[in-house]
Amino acid sequence: MEVDSRRAQRIVDRCREIAAFSEVRGETTRLYLCEPMRAVHGLLRGWMEVAGMTVTVDAAGNLRGLFDPAGISGAGGSAGRLMVGSHLDTVPRAGAFDGVLGVVMGVALVEEMARAGVRPGFAVEVVGFSEEEGVRFGMPFLGSLAMVGGLTKEVLERRDARGVSVAEALGAFGCDSAGIPGIAGEMDGVMGYLEVHIEQGPVLESEGRGVGVVDALVGQTRLRVTFTGEANHAGTTPMRLRRDAMTAAAEWVGAVEEVGLRVPGLVATVGRMEARPGAVNVVAGEVVATLDARHAEDGVRTEAVREMRERAEAAGARRGVRVSVEVGMEQAAVRMDQRMVRALTAAAGRVLGGDRDVRVMMSGAGHDAMVMAGRVPSAMLFLRSPGGLSHHPEETVLVEDVETGLAVMAEFVMAMAAGGR
Amino acid sequence: MEVDSRRAQRIVDRCREIAAFSEVRGETTRLYLCEPMRAVHGLLRGWMEVAGMTVTVDAAGNLRGLFDPAGISGAGGSAGRLMVGSHLDTVPRAGAFDGVLGVVMGVALVEEMARAGVRPGFAVEVVGFSEEEGVRFGMPFLGSLAMVGGLTKEVLERRDARGVSVAEALGAFGCDSAGIPGIAGEMDGVMGYLEVHIEQGPVLESEGRGVGVVDALVGQTRLRVTFTGEANHAGTTPMRLRRDAMTAAAEWVGAVEEVGLRVPGLVATVGRMEARPGAVNVVAGEVVATLDARHAEDGVRTEAVREMRERAEAAGARRGVRVSVEVGMEQAAVRMDQRMVRALTAAAGRVLGGDRDVRVMMSGAGHDAMVMAGRVPSAMLFLRSPGGLSHHPEETVLVEDVETGLAVMAEFVMAMAAGGR
Repeated sequence: MEVDSRRAQRIVDRCREIAAFSEVRGETTRLYLCEPMRAVHGLLRGWMEVAGMTVTVDAAGNLRGLFDPAGISGAGGSAGRLMVGSHLDTVPRAGAFDGVLGVVMGVALVEEMARAGVRPGFAVEVVGFSEEEGVRFGMPFLGSLAMVGGLTKEVLERRDARGVSVAEALGAFGCDSAGIPGIAGEMDGVMGYLEVHIEQGPVLESEGRGVGVVDALVGQTRLRVTFTGEANHAGTTPMRLRRDAMTAAAEWVGAVEEVGLRVPGLVATVGRMEARPGAVNVVAGEVVATLDARHAEDGVRTEAVREMRERAEAAGARRGVRVSVEVGMEQAAVRMDQRMVRALTAAAGRVLGGDRDVRVMMSGAGHDAMVMAGRVPSAMLFLRSPGGLSHHPEETVLVEDVETGLAVMAEFVMAMAAGGR
Repeated sequence: MEVDSRRAQRIVDRCREIAAFSEVRGETTRLYLCEPMRAVHGLLRGWMEVAGMTVTVDAAGNLRGLFDPAGISGAGGSAGRLMVGSHLDTVPRAGAFDGVLGVVMGVALVEEMARAGVRPGFAVEVVGFSEEEGVRFGMPFLGSLAMVGGLTKEVLERRDARGVSVAEALGAFGCDSAGIPGIAGEMDGVMGYLEVHIEQGPVLESEGRGVGVVDALVGQTRLRVTFTGEANHAGTTPMRLRRDAMTAAAEWVGAVEEVGLRVPGLVATVGRMEARPGAVNVVAGEVVATLDARHAEDGVRTEAVREMRERAEAAGARRGVRVSVEVGMEQAAVRMDQRMVRALTAAAGRVLGGDRDVRVMMSGAGHDAMVMAGRVPSAMLFLRSPGGLSHHPEETVLVEDVETGLAVMAEFVMAMAAGGR
């Protein structure tokens, strides 16, 4: 197979074409099962069919295109099938590449295979997951969860801001949620899942690299920390008679930053802080702050979070401020399949010239591959994010990186076909 | 004149009676020129008339009761007149004593003078200012500003949250704003203004005292400080590649606290902090925080604010975060009239037994006396605030302190009558 920059440019153009389909004019906002998603499915279906794929939308709203010219696999088949893809939903005011790029590159891979007449001895299924961002129902990964049996009855009963349940939204989109258990049942023949995604961070760019192989997805702890002091008049309450929730919380933010800088590989963020009553002339009686801490090794993360909780207690105790902590998320790190990682790294090495080091890295964000890894061997390829931008209208990719990425995918498939899997 | 605890208890009861008149059932919320204020005026008018006062509502909505049995002063008179009072408006969900207490004690003083047949050689005018808290039109002291010529055309054009201007609100209340310039014109005969107010802070209580004489009202600087960094993904952006507005702001909050604790008499507060985008998993790109700094000496305050601004710059610079500062208020300290302060201190000394020290203190909050001091000699007497509570439904006073306060007022008036002014 031959990958050239025109094909890469077409991938970028297709992503931008898809970005025009939005719930809000002038921006890209495409939540789970929204109306504009139908047009996106239509567009991709057209491209997929031209490339020789059989296209369906499953009971969870995932778009699936099966390329199986040799008749090896089928809807219920157990023979070999490689899944390639990512998600089609977006955050509000999104860019054009987060998720969509991985699906469009999957289609391009099949187009290239069809053009070159490649018969790898297994089917390739391109999947456009219906939901990954977690915006509409406050829970992410709904599309991939269906494939691993995690789209449970409880999840189907969750409601969005307008009171519509997941099951109802599926029905309105034309999907029968009764078919959801069947999705997981059809995963037996899947040999692996490969996801291409923008990095959404500055690491590859800061190192001057175009692609990276993901070794592991970080584990994550989210806390909601409440500092409770006493609201008082800012003019009449002497400094030493205060129980100021704001100064306690601020000291803690400093401690979180200090631990984050000290522990290698750790990221620790206080992204939200709210003071009550929140008036310029009132000493804050209560401050609620959040913590997001991530690391590739669960033990390191757990120890760092323990220290950060202690530092919150200490900052409060010095000021007569009570500290309470609510754990909002506790998610273990997920390692990618090590055989697939090795194969993908080798493929990248061949594309990049062999003698150059291939960057093997962790992902600081969650991805569908994290969920899929619970059921099938999974791996991810990252493409450089210029400016580290993502979840932003100006999020972009370089055409040369798309070209490299597609070449790595093709190399990977050819190596699998040659029995190197 | 004789002051006893039954009279003090009646003052407390009357304040609680007034607190029932509210824009919101079950709480005390009485903004400038609201409907329930009419009933409060009616109640006070009744008490004032029984005590022998002539009652009017002026063009700014201030309730004014003139006690002038000897016919010394009049509506337009230039003869001697002592003003006594405070304000009748409240913050939302207020207590029963902030402001109202000073008006009700003014009425009680006149009742006592009438009962005892005191003829001091000057008139006493009890004033219930219409507005002091600044809630409805985002600007405080509207009632007392009218007396010093500060209720200008620009102020009359300010609009509340519903788009109603000050002038329109006055008209709807039955006041003709055209008469406002005349209010200041009638101040020539005023010998002084005496305001009794709850301390709204913990100082008197922490020293075991019931009353304090206010020597000066603190000067005040309010800033709005904006920290602008870069919003980034909390998982994919390594600590050292961040420009985190939250950590910069938090370091600055610590600096504000440190300066506040170090400089004697200074209070410095960050009561409000808002992060954008304000999501648990996004490094804050922008944080807006407020500063409220107060001190009795303007030079000390100015120097402290300068240092705090420098510390903000430094906290930002360390992290590639830009800092911009908007000055929201810059108000000089106001000294009370020193002759009145001495006379009030002497009166308090006689009531408290002479040999006990009278507490002379600063006020950390603004009061009508601060505005009135620009036009007439002014002084204030503070009553202890149990628990330091104010702007709170549980704000209260001790009956024994009200008794002491009323006795000090009576002593003060008798000394003035005896020529000691």
